[in-house]
Amino acid sequence: MTDARLTILDTDQTPLANQEVVLEQTQHKFLFGTAAFDLVPLTNGEYAGERKEQAEQRAEKLTALFNAATLPFYWARFEPRRGEPLTEQVKNAAAWCIGHGLVVKGHPLCWHTLTADWLLSMSNAEILKAQIARIERDVSDFRGLIQMWDVINEAVIMPIFDKYDNGITRLCKEMGRIHLIKAMFEAARAENPSAILLINDFDVSPAFDILVEGCLEAGIQIDCIGIQSHMHQGYWGVEETLRVLDQFARFNLPIHFTETTLVSGRLMPPEIVDLNDYQVQEWPTTPDGESRQAEETIQHYKTLFAHPLVEGITWWDLSDGGWLNAPAGLLRKDGSSKPAYDELLKLVKGKWWISPTKLSTDSNGQIRFTGFFGDYALVHAGLRKTFSVTRENAPAIEIYL
Amino acid sequence: MTDARLTILDTDQTPLANQEVVLEQTQHKFLFGTAAFDLVPLTNGEYAGERKEQAEQRAEKLTALFNAATLPFYWARFEPRRGEPLTEQVKNAAAWCIGHGLVVKGHPLCWHTLTADWLLSMSNAEILKAQIARIERDVSDFRGLIQMWDVINEAVIMPIFDKYDNGITRLCKEMGRIHLIKAMFEAARAENPSAILLINDFDVSPAFDILVEGCLEAGIQIDCIGIQSHMHQGYWGVEETLRVLDQFARFNLPIHFTETTLVSGRLMPPEIVDLNDYQVQEWPTTPDGESRQAEETIQHYKTLFAHPLVEGITWWDLSDGGWLNAPAGLLRKDGSSKPAYDELLKLVKGKWWISPTKLSTDSNGQIRFTGFFGDYALVHAGLRKTFSVTRENAPAIEIYL
Repeated sequence: MTDARLTILDTDQTPLANQEVVLEQTQHKFLFGTAAFDLVPLTNGEYAGERKEQAEQRAEKLTALFNAATLPFYWARFEPRRGEPLTEQVKNAAAWCIGHGLVVKGHPLCWHTLTADWLLSMSNAEILKAQIARIERDVSDFRGLIQMWDVINEAVIMPIFDKYDNGITRLCKEMGRIHLIKAMFEAARAENPSAILLINDFDVSPAFDILVEGCLEAGIQIDCIGIQSHMHQGYWGVEETLRVLDQFARFNLPIHFTETTLVSGRLMPPEIVDLNDYQVQEWPTTPDGESRQAEETIQHYKTLFAHPLVEGITWWDLSDGGWLNAPAGLLRKDGSSKPAYDELLKLVKGKWWISPTKLSTDSNGQIRFTGFFGDYALVHAGLRKTFSVTRENAPAIEIYL
Repeated sequence: MTDARLTILDTDQTPLANQEVVLEQTQHKFLFGTAAFDLVPLTNGEYAGERKEQAEQRAEKLTALFNAATLPFYWARFEPRRGEPLTEQVKNAAAWCIGHGLVVKGHPLCWHTLTADWLLSMSNAEILKAQIARIERDVSDFRGLIQMWDVINEAVIMPIFDKYDNGITRLCKEMGRIHLIKAMFEAARAENPSAILLINDFDVSPAFDILVEGCLEAGIQIDCIGIQSHMHQGYWGVEETLRVLDQFARFNLPIHFTETTLVSGRLMPPEIVDLNDYQVQEWPTTPDGESRQAEETIQHYKTLFAHPLVEGITWWDLSDGGWLNAPAGLLRKDGSSKPAYDELLKLVKGKWWISPTKLSTDSNGQIRFTGFFGDYALVHAGLRKTFSVTRENAPAIEIYL
């Protein structure tokens, strides 16, 4: 939140004194995002009939609330057969997002889970080459569409992951985490120097903190620290959230909460260590669960939004029935909104948002208002001028009608 | 263990063919160490009467089994009043150790626990200056006596330690772990370039692994990785021990098990997280506990001694009633040996040791034997020649009588 002062001038530099104008916000700078994997089939004509209608309704609710979307680049699914990546399909989804005002993030470029199984027949040198080539290709192919990447995912456990053999764990075990991360970041950076590159992890113990420190010591240019918060086993609460923020704030780097989950059904038992081990047929959303979810969601967003370094929160998933079949959505399976969706909308496009508002300029042609960083429009006598409010320009913005 | 070949020549280079010689080992290269804080009062005349006698008996048992000793440099105790360090007292203990064939390690130079409480009135810049000055003074004062230091202790939790406020946690929180460690290592290295400098931690999770990686990336010259293994809550077992070794082996640096504890009484309950929280009046050694301790101790030493990177194991404490009043000793409170002591002695000075042995040289003046790296003596016709067996020279050692 910031205090902004606008000076409105006409084309010959005369202040527009004592006039009525309308101010409205058009975009948050803060990234309110969601996993949006569903947009790939939707934008590629893979849905028909009722399923298509439902997907379109979900997409409408997505754009009504969010200004950012995470699209899937899991290697195993993105390029199931070597040399046949789903580039065009994901490009269609990315372009749709851009057209709907959504900032797109690609997730992830390097991860041991869901990596290509055709790496398994390779030597580590070949795996490294293939992994780097994959990054170069995808970051280059999506330049302009995707300017934000989860470059590395879950590096803390990467070399010790023991659920199944995979090429990336092998490679990380040989190279060490930091050398591997460095190679991945350098490959991505070279293809798109202006992209925002993240290191992303679910580990919020000192291990991830220390890894970030080591990466920075090794000269890796991390643009943003990505923190997952899959709270299937219960909301962290404000205190733990602040502890996590405090742990990473010392790097003075932007922080994204990249994968935020709060379920609206029963909680996953606390003894589950790897969430993927919890496989259930049915995991219904419940009225009690939905009100708990709404309350905790609002608390979590308020806590994070208030922190000066947090620049984005991504919800995971938009609808029930996604990962783990969890009732983790803001929407039910039938597409209807849960209270968490409604409450979040009231914040993001209500309390934290400036809807069209009539204001009068003073004798110097100035108006003052308090709002959040983002894009705005000013309307006067049929003229509409857009401008951004940033940390830098907020105290003195000039608008020429 | 290595195969060694000796060629024994007389002073005019003639091989000593077909003669009987006596070979005996005088020292292990591998460091079998123990915490030996007790030597400070003993060597400074602070014991009298029966207590002195007992301490002398303990010291005899110490030198019978061990070839290394860790002496205490806890800042709070070493320099309780600023400017009045116990340098002379600890020097007496160190000199005693050297005189008794013990390699001495100083523990620790920088640790948040038991750090000087007079740091609390200082700014972080002053704390850093005082901490560096402390390292410079002590490493310099003990040069020649102490060539091995635990430079940093428990850095993984150092900045988040929240039991009580202390200067080092404050400093580490501001500097970050790696910058702090770098400053400490550089201070120690500058004062004694030939010293062996360790980073020591009880954390055997990926956090410590990642910290070591980050330190190496930052150019910190770590000579040896120190791993604590205070097993008050039960023996790790071979599998976990091998996992830990595997985790750190990838750095290809020497590893010391710096603080090894196995109790011969009841185990500490598993829910205790910080061992220091377990405060009991009585924690007796028991016959069952003693046989369990002996068995596990032997297994632990065998596992570690067999690993190519492990170069030392330090037992913690030699006698019962030390840290936490635990029955962690190899000796009971009355000074008598527990089975673990006896069994360890049988290994270290028995199975893993060459007692004086008659051998005959062949026609080329050669003898071959299988033994462990260390120091040996060869006796022939009243002449005694000492030599070392190292990884490098083992295949071809020449001895001139």
